[in-house]
Amino acid sequence: MDTTQLPKYQQIIETIKEKISKGEWPIGSKIPSQRKLAEEFGVNRSTIITALEEQAADGLIEGKTGVGTKVINNTWTLLASRQSANWSEYIDTGIHRASEKIVQEINDLEMDPAFIQLSKGELSPEIFPVQTMQKVLKEAADELSELGYEEPKGYLPLRQAVSEYLAASGIYASPSSILIVSGGLQALQLVSLGLVQRGAPVFLEKPSYLYSLQLFRSSGMNLKGLPMDKEGIITKSISLKKYEKGKSILYTIPSYHNPTGILMTEKRRRELLDVCRIEQLPIVEDDIYRELWLDEMPPPPLKAMDKNGQVLYMGSLSKTLSPGLRIGWVAAPEPVIDRLADLKMQTDYGSSSLSQRAAEKWLSTGLYQKHIENVREQLRVRRHTALNTLDEHLSGIAEWNSPEGGFFIWLKVPSTIPIRLLYRQAISRKLLLNPGSIYSDGPNHFIRISYAYASLGELQEGILILGEEIRKLL
Amino acid sequence: MDTTQLPKYQQIIETIKEKISKGEWPIGSKIPSQRKLAEEFGVNRSTIITALEEQAADGLIEGKTGVGTKVINNTWTLLASRQSANWSEYIDTGIHRASEKIVQEINDLEMDPAFIQLSKGELSPEIFPVQTMQKVLKEAADELSELGYEEPKGYLPLRQAVSEYLAASGIYASPSSILIVSGGLQALQLVSLGLVQRGAPVFLEKPSYLYSLQLFRSSGMNLKGLPMDKEGIITKSISLKKYEKGKSILYTIPSYHNPTGILMTEKRRRELLDVCRIEQLPIVEDDIYRELWLDEMPPPPLKAMDKNGQVLYMGSLSKTLSPGLRIGWVAAPEPVIDRLADLKMQTDYGSSSLSQRAAEKWLSTGLYQKHIENVREQLRVRRHTALNTLDEHLSGIAEWNSPEGGFFIWLKVPSTIPIRLLYRQAISRKLLLNPGSIYSDGPNHFIRISYAYASLGELQEGILILGEEIRKLL
Repeated sequence: MDTTQLPKYQQIIETIKEKISKGEWPIGSKIPSQRKLAEEFGVNRSTIITALEEQAADGLIEGKTGVGTKVINNTWTLLASRQSANWSEYIDTGIHRASEKIVQEINDLEMDPAFIQLSKGELSPEIFPVQTMQKVLKEAADELSELGYEEPKGYLPLRQAVSEYLAASGIYASPSSILIVSGGLQALQLVSLGLVQRGAPVFLEKPSYLYSLQLFRSSGMNLKGLPMDKEGIITKSISLKKYEKGKSILYTIPSYHNPTGILMTEKRRRELLDVCRIEQLPIVEDDIYRELWLDEMPPPPLKAMDKNGQVLYMGSLSKTLSPGLRIGWVAAPEPVIDRLADLKMQTDYGSSSLSQRAAEKWLSTGLYQKHIENVREQLRVRRHTALNTLDEHLSGIAEWNSPEGGFFIWLKVPSTIPIRLLYRQAISRKLLLNPGSIYSDGPNHFIRISYAYASLGELQEGILILGEEIRKLL
Repeated sequence: MDTTQLPKYQQIIETIKEKISKGEWPIGSKIPSQRKLAEEFGVNRSTIITALEEQAADGLIEGKTGVGTKVINNTWTLLASRQSANWSEYIDTGIHRASEKIVQEINDLEMDPAFIQLSKGELSPEIFPVQTMQKVLKEAADELSELGYEEPKGYLPLRQAVSEYLAASGIYASPSSILIVSGGLQALQLVSLGLVQRGAPVFLEKPSYLYSLQLFRSSGMNLKGLPMDKEGIITKSISLKKYEKGKSILYTIPSYHNPTGILMTEKRRRELLDVCRIEQLPIVEDDIYRELWLDEMPPPPLKAMDKNGQVLYMGSLSKTLSPGLRIGWVAAPEPVIDRLADLKMQTDYGSSSLSQRAAEKWLSTGLYQKHIENVREQLRVRRHTALNTLDEHLSGIAEWNSPEGGFFIWLKVPSTIPIRLLYRQAISRKLLLNPGSIYSDGPNHFIRISYAYASLGELQEGILILGEEIRKLL
């Protein structure tokens, strides 16, 4: 735009804006002195000062006596940062905000091949069944005739396959009561968008995976942690205030809980169902680790014991076959599935048809079930290595459980050790592990390590480093 | 649970709850009379009345004199419906709520093969390149080595391919300024979650695709329609209040606008960029129809003319290749992409790796560009058929544009015809078309028809039926 038509004062503002947004004056840079700008524009210094003041009021620049004036924002960053400010309205304390940063950092470092990944809750690429996946994809390709939008609840043959698959765990859900989602996280997002009222309490294990998910707090979920013992949630801790009834949900990972690895006993499962029925508290059962039992099969899912349509059940292929497929499912009473399917359509018009077709092949041919047997075999070796190495290097300086399934060991370090510092020290030695603080609020002396991802050698080396760093901090 | 330990009164309530949630007394059914219940439980009628009153207060049952008591809810439907009530807080008027229902109905009917689909904004399966897609999938399968979570911004080779592809339209975006998304709708959702403040105005064409998306209004986007002429948005209608500055965005579909088919001229594009720069109004450019030009190439994207980092650009494979892939992209200043990538990770941990790999193959081999030439050829034939048939059957009773690209013809019917009634009449004859009312608020005399999906024969038949129904209503 030609700015020469504007009054001098406005011209200066426009020029400054343009230089900032074009990146000619990037964020963080010092702009020319007032004297110099005055010369450049041929105005007196007070005109410059007024123009700069307006830019400062808009949040683009910031002046400090003796230091000069710096660019601190452009239009987009203003938008992004104002938005952050808005998000933080829904965040209770400073600790949460910090936890968001650390989770972002972990996400980034998980992509760094230079690190020993004791953090990733994901199967090692060594376990990924490349050849079978190639075969499945080629078969799916051969059968392809079109690739349009799928039905709102997902590709029907896949829903049929999931329905049959669930029946093997005692869950009877017809394809119309099943919604295909892009992984467990999306299922949770749909629940939080569609079923949970802003500000309504969500009861859950403390610690829990959900605490690490900023989005849920940002979308107004009010997390209420429930204490656990080695059998799972202590059910007598569940109590709803009158006005909370009919608005709250309970979220639980009964099998090989993330991050603690705890397996809820059958007795506790029945108690939980009873208490929740009486409290009119619907249950969201996150059962994505169920197939990863290592010693013996877990008790039936809550959903299989559920006679009252209380339970919304979530499963996924991400932890057992491939996260890259982005395929999971929800089974729940049909009106709830209808509601979530409508939201899913409004969110992303359904999951990848390619992935849905591949998933259908895995499930309906029995290849999936066969693959999981191999996964269990491999995880047993990994767990054994992890526990042996822990015995060797961390005896006496930490405590841990021996998980009956899943990926995780929940390590307790001495309470004199600042957990964030330990995390930092590990990072400085290219070891990534998850500090317990991201799974809970309040003081924390735990670390989650995963034996699923790193190679056996890295697993041993990582635990060795962890031992050394703990000793240094003692 | 054994209820015999509870007081009689409580037992009755528990029994009723159980029967309702088990589905033994399904929603809509009449429950036994008070007299009969009194006999059954061996209590007097007043105890029954008190117990029923409590259930009614919980919203589970409803009693009407002379009709008896009916089940109206169970725990889950209560949750879902309360939530609906909550959603509607963010909806301005009754009209919007109605529009949501009709959009759901259209979504459902679009899956019904008995209907002539003049509604679907999607390429006909006849145009889908089955064999090439099979070849691409098999090549992608052969190259597969793992299928884990991708980087937060998406599969790097795909981002590189998109970066090169965008350069052909004059857009220079490095892979780190590109985010892979599961289609254009998800891009919009991320923008609405991450950049738009609740209640802040979103300027957009009126009518617009966005009006049909309940989710955006529900998430607090405050839509401000801008009038258009045949060159696009009338830019002098854009004006922000002081407090709206730095909070608002402008959403536009400059090429083959949905639903009107309008192509914004180059002159108008430059004006729009100027006005938005002065108003500090970032632009979200939805350019998913760009490649579907039929007569001559459209003017450069706004993003290509954007010297100031004002524009967030959205593209997708859904309209040109396959909606089932669920692959689209966003190009924007890097801090914005960082923010959206983080949200995307929190939403669904990234798009399907399979789909990303397939998309990369299409783009990087030039197969995509070759395919689009064929798509244009087919769409020209379809547009020709549609316009000829309109001339034949609707001359004098409707007005329409001749679109220069895209999928849509925007039909104006006489203002005496109630548009909803016309839509209903068409449905009764198994013809699905989109009433203009879902793209706008206020009175409306338009219909959107798509020539992209139905076969040529259906296209002709559908337009014939439409003509007949309009005549009946005149």
